[in-house]
Amino acid sequence: MLRRIFLLLLLFSTRLDATTDPLPSWNEGSAKTAILQFVADVTTYGHPDFVAEEQRIAVFDQDGTLWVEHPIYAQAYFLLDQVKHLARLPNGKDLGIIKTLLHADIKSLIKLGQVEINRLLGILQVGMTCEEYRNSVQDWLARAKHPKLNKPFHQLVYQPMLEVIQLLKNNGFTPYIVSGGGQEFIRAYAEIVYGIPPEHVIGTAVKVKYTYADGVDSFVRTPKLLWKNEKKHKAETIHLMIGRRPIVAFGNSDGDLQMLQFTHAGTKRNLALLVHHDDKKREYAYDSHTYVGTFSDALREEAQQNDWIIVSMKNDWNRIFR
Amino acid sequence: MLRRIFLLLLLFSTRLDATTDPLPSWNEGSAKTAILQFVADVTTYGHPDFVAEEQRIAVFDQDGTLWVEHPIYAQAYFLLDQVKHLARLPNGKDLGIIKTLLHADIKSLIKLGQVEINRLLGILQVGMTCEEYRNSVQDWLARAKHPKLNKPFHQLVYQPMLEVIQLLKNNGFTPYIVSGGGQEFIRAYAEIVYGIPPEHVIGTAVKVKYTYADGVDSFVRTPKLLWKNEKKHKAETIHLMIGRRPIVAFGNSDGDLQMLQFTHAGTKRNLALLVHHDDKKREYAYDSHTYVGTFSDALREEAQQNDWIIVSMKNDWNRIFR
Repeated sequence: MLRRIFLLLLLFSTRLDATTDPLPSWNEGSAKTAILQFVADVTTYGHPDFVAEEQRIAVFDQDGTLWVEHPIYAQAYFLLDQVKHLARLPNGKDLGIIKTLLHADIKSLIKLGQVEINRLLGILQVGMTCEEYRNSVQDWLARAKHPKLNKPFHQLVYQPMLEVIQLLKNNGFTPYIVSGGGQEFIRAYAEIVYGIPPEHVIGTAVKVKYTYADGVDSFVRTPKLLWKNEKKHKAETIHLMIGRRPIVAFGNSDGDLQMLQFTHAGTKRNLALLVHHDDKKREYAYDSHTYVGTFSDALREEAQQNDWIIVSMKNDWNRIFR
Repeated sequence: MLRRIFLLLLLFSTRLDATTDPLPSWNEGSAKTAILQFVADVTTYGHPDFVAEEQRIAVFDQDGTLWVEHPIYAQAYFLLDQVKHLARLPNGKDLGIIKTLLHADIKSLIKLGQVEINRLLGILQVGMTCEEYRNSVQDWLARAKHPKLNKPFHQLVYQPMLEVIQLLKNNGFTPYIVSGGGQEFIRAYAEIVYGIPPEHVIGTAVKVKYTYADGVDSFVRTPKLLWKNEKKHKAETIHLMIGRRPIVAFGNSDGDLQMLQFTHAGTKRNLALLVHHDDKKREYAYDSHTYVGTFSDALREEAQQNDWIIVSMKNDWNRIFR
């Protein structure tokens, strides 16, 4: 009797495994197959490509890889929002830039670039505690909407990528966000939006100062950039914060090139992917002639030479947003 | 029949629990009781002090808290060793310091301090890849002996602290090393010596540069300090690297004060401890009149005011080294 119950249970669980697709928003094709095969191989003990659990590090760019970045990074809209709600204008040489932003059209914002956005946010928020900053990000995210897609940014997260993160977590990987965006900006929502805790978020970081008196403490933001987390700096901050070479890297633009090279140069089996925005109907289609998320011909060539996977949003994803 | 086997198994496992002391190197007393009670309370679902697993962050100073630091930090012996094996002397203003080190007595080394040691190592190792640096640390650790205690440094690790680390890991905590010592220095051995992986080691860090060409890459060390990880900087790097407030902090000197204040200022139940070196017979006894590991009267007062636990190596530990 017990044995029959056991066999029935086994049958049931096997059936569940066979019918539950961990990547339902991915169409059948080479990208989906490559991801599933990679995960199966490196997690199968005894397989020549087996990788121990503690070394299963996966890194994800954020803007354009995990959520929408067009026509401009979400953090730029946050900056614009903060400028509009400024109690008083800052002094000095940046006053001009800030004043321009007050009347900004989207084009001047786009031209700023992610590092400059972080620098300006740094200037606006000098003296703000990190707690106040986190609250201001969360408040903004709760009310802000993407001007074209007319939805909150936290709903403009790519469902297929959430499925990849979950698949990796279920298989003993540790997923990190490695973004040019502000580290504290992303940490304010990453746990709720992506299920990625603060210690696994690496971004452009400003220096903070610790103050303490009589049991009450705070961290205060300074305008000093510790690092601009793009291009080769992404490899450097992974080294600094994690100290291991990743075996999975997902990016979508020239700013992710070195992160993918770093991942791919390892001796372990690895998986490097680029999300290509080629879906004008459901999201955006853009390549090299843009300020944001440049996907240059050089990047495409490097990908083809190294057999990196180029994910077509149009063809590989049957659903875009969560 | 099945039920009898089950009950026997239950009895056996209960007996095991009752007789297996997770802290056998700790004598019965207030320190041991406080640690065990804290762990039991914050991990018991439904207890008013329950803390979710992802928030069970524990931070440990290294020198003098996890292994011997007297008469001078292990890393200073490493520096001395590296200077003696230098192929050629560096140029510039630091040549004098390096030359002095070549004939150094222990007193001039002691006076350097941990930040200066890291700065000098940085200068000596400019252009070294991080892989070469790690190998040089591991080579040194394999052959170096503590001059007074006449044992390899990796054997001069405190057994009672290894037991605390294991107890915390077994109860869903994540232990981090937060040290004034070099981040890459400690990462070279922390996994083997303490069971703490590289991503959970925070130390004084130098800037590294990523280089890549034709599929071959490396990180090269620069002399530029990113941060000196002592005093209030320990709170700042915890914020930067983890982004959460710890609930457990272990230190042993004035350099750990702010890390303990940061931990203790939280609203969650927390545990702050200081290891006091008062065992002249088995290790060392030292307080404020020392260059290394200063345990000042001010630190003692702060500990007493906040009910931090002062661990007496002499009375609380029945065994010192692993």
